[in-house]
Amino acid sequence: MFTQNSLVLSVNAGSSSLKISLFRAVDKDLEPVELILTSSLSNITAPPAKFSFKLIQGPSKNEELPSVHDHASAFTHFLDCLDREADIDRAEIGHVCHRVVHGGDYTDPVLINDEAYTHIERLSDLAPLHNGASLAVIKTCLSQLPNAKSIAFFDTAFHRSIPPHISNYAIDQKIAKKRGLKKYGFHGLSYSFILRSVERFLQQPSNTLNLIILHLGSGASACCIAHGQSLDTSMGLTPLNGLPGATRSGAIDPSLIFHYTNRAGRMSHDKGNAVNLHVTQAEYILNTQAGWKALVGTTDFGAITARRTEDPAARLAFELFADRVLNYVGSYHLKLGGKVDALVFSGGIGEHSKELRAFIADRVGCLGYAPIDAGRNDTVNAAEGVVADVGEPGAAGPRLLVCRTNEELEMARQCVLGSL
Amino acid sequence: MFTQNSLVLSVNAGSSSLKISLFRAVDKDLEPVELILTSSLSNITAPPAKFSFKLIQGPSKNEELPSVHDHASAFTHFLDCLDREADIDRAEIGHVCHRVVHGGDYTDPVLINDEAYTHIERLSDLAPLHNGASLAVIKTCLSQLPNAKSIAFFDTAFHRSIPPHISNYAIDQKIAKKRGLKKYGFHGLSYSFILRSVERFLQQPSNTLNLIILHLGSGASACCIAHGQSLDTSMGLTPLNGLPGATRSGAIDPSLIFHYTNRAGRMSHDKGNAVNLHVTQAEYILNTQAGWKALVGTTDFGAITARRTEDPAARLAFELFADRVLNYVGSYHLKLGGKVDALVFSGGIGEHSKELRAFIADRVGCLGYAPIDAGRNDTVNAAEGVVADVGEPGAAGPRLLVCRTNEELEMARQCVLGSL
Repeated sequence: MFTQNSLVLSVNAGSSSLKISLFRAVDKDLEPVELILTSSLSNITAPPAKFSFKLIQGPSKNEELPSVHDHASAFTHFLDCLDREADIDRAEIGHVCHRVVHGGDYTDPVLINDEAYTHIERLSDLAPLHNGASLAVIKTCLSQLPNAKSIAFFDTAFHRSIPPHISNYAIDQKIAKKRGLKKYGFHGLSYSFILRSVERFLQQPSNTLNLIILHLGSGASACCIAHGQSLDTSMGLTPLNGLPGATRSGAIDPSLIFHYTNRAGRMSHDKGNAVNLHVTQAEYILNTQAGWKALVGTTDFGAITARRTEDPAARLAFELFADRVLNYVGSYHLKLGGKVDALVFSGGIGEHSKELRAFIADRVGCLGYAPIDAGRNDTVNAAEGVVADVGEPGAAGPRLLVCRTNEELEMARQCVLGSL
Repeated sequence: MFTQNSLVLSVNAGSSSLKISLFRAVDKDLEPVELILTSSLSNITAPPAKFSFKLIQGPSKNEELPSVHDHASAFTHFLDCLDREADIDRAEIGHVCHRVVHGGDYTDPVLINDEAYTHIERLSDLAPLHNGASLAVIKTCLSQLPNAKSIAFFDTAFHRSIPPHISNYAIDQKIAKKRGLKKYGFHGLSYSFILRSVERFLQQPSNTLNLIILHLGSGASACCIAHGQSLDTSMGLTPLNGLPGATRSGAIDPSLIFHYTNRAGRMSHDKGNAVNLHVTQAEYILNTQAGWKALVGTTDFGAITARRTEDPAARLAFELFADRVLNYVGSYHLKLGGKVDALVFSGGIGEHSKELRAFIADRVGCLGYAPIDAGRNDTVNAAEGVVADVGEPGAAGPRLLVCRTNEELEMARQCVLGSL
């Protein structure tokens, strides 16, 4: 289906940001796509938006865009730039891959037609804070790139293998089935990328791999991989559950919010969101007014780490996060029967915080994991390649790996290798 | 303070039940109280109430009480029976111990005067479903036994040692401090009893003991004990969090309830409760309309276990419960640095379900725990003594213990040994 040189655009929309990568389909076994350029737009809902545009072989550009105020105008600006700055005809784009956080029961990517769009819109009721931006971009894309195929890739799809006794909640099953109330799990594109990368790095077929993967970023989750499939993950019905994040509470007592505010069940009317949302105050508070921002006043985990020796609030945030991460590592280690090939750190924090990696590695030593190698741990960010080993060379026990995840590349890969 | 023969009454009020034990203070080192009689009242809010009254050295009695319809009349009936059936003058009762589930920041038992009563009433806003019945009994007790000292024992007190990075949630700390929103933990009287019993059984001072204790009953929780102190526990701000139970969901995605009902934040007006409650629909549903009752239609874990091979719903409930229990065991094993003296099963299910014990023991074998001894596991219910070892005799690794917990005895003990 894919001819060489066919262009694939990967779009990753966050609540106030847009990350875009353009790839060319190439005829290689291992990596079927080649990166041409990357672009990002941030502060979309807090103008002026910041725009960056970087050709892999060519110049880059950074500017502020006072005229951009929503995801539609942001995406349109990118397309204009493509013609003007990179001399790429947008008509050459054959496929656009959209990361959609919540895919409900979709277990595979879907080609977006009117029916699929409506379906995704409907299931977005479960995650309006997370799907809203993607839907806005998809709409723009359909009108601006009418000849390209738009494909939705779901962060939930990777977790289709989680068995019912792990994915179900102990609630009325009639209501649960009717409203789709179960653990879906998220960060699936990232886990899929990491699994494939670790398979290559360890030269071991993925269906023999047992991994504990930590995707730690401003949204953070953990995944338990048994024989190359998701067996459990920390996020739940929505990305709110599990680990805390930059502005997200993570798991809390389910009754807490009713003692936090007596307006928990009312609808939120926040102006800071570009898209029209139907979200309760509870969900708005726990997704956007909690996490490290609420504990320390910053969403920058690097700053929290640096301040933790003198600032008790920063120390609390660091130790609280590490505690919750370790809870999942301990659970998943047991769930895998102690047979773990590697503990993998990924996501912004997993890839950059040598302090957190050292802290976690120190604790899991008692379970027989390889000790961390201080030198490797300190310099891993500069290491070549997608996966790096930060454990002591030659040590026995599960390896300690760092993986630079890449959701845009994962979508482009799946797109080129897939059948849509 | 305690003269020999002084009588101590222990009262344990559930939402629709009352368990009462009468003890005599005796002059013994190990066990400072001696049981005289036990009594229980159930179905209090679903008349006719069932009453049992059993003298340790004497007759017992079971009857239905059409006239009892709330905790106050239930307690009054018990006192009448004391005079009439057991020929015990209620004026001899010097102390009444009340189990109060939620004690907020109380770290010790308190003598109940008007001020303390008001304080307990106020903090009961955090757990109206759980403290309501105790408050009703305390009130009755103060008027019916005016010369006895009423003392509140809190299920939260045992967990005062949980450090802030474990007990705090990743939410706005100003609001958290102001409204007391943190992990308190519950089942503390039970954990305190078990810790002391295991200390005696293993002949090892409690401050050297690392234990993972599972209190598994219709309300279930797990506790991580490091050096004889609670380091973590599965329940949270309220008993709702953590493990699922007979009618309780346990931990769920914090946004779930808003997708379950659009009336989550409204007040519940359930007639089934004896006491006047201020509870949201969400809390009411998740505490009383979830758990095994919602999954299988019964609250009897024994029946669920028996049906699990032919009934998929029963199998789901059994495996879901075991999965969640194992999540905590794995977490706590790592939290204790792998240095665990024993895994202790307790509570109605922990004490009676050989199937669940065998299931859990089989899974933790990979962490080096003693293998379960089938013979001992099958017959432990009949074993003498409070603690029994169900692991293979002489096996290395953390022991597998079963402990018959006794919250009423724990209160009486603390009362006699304490300073109130």
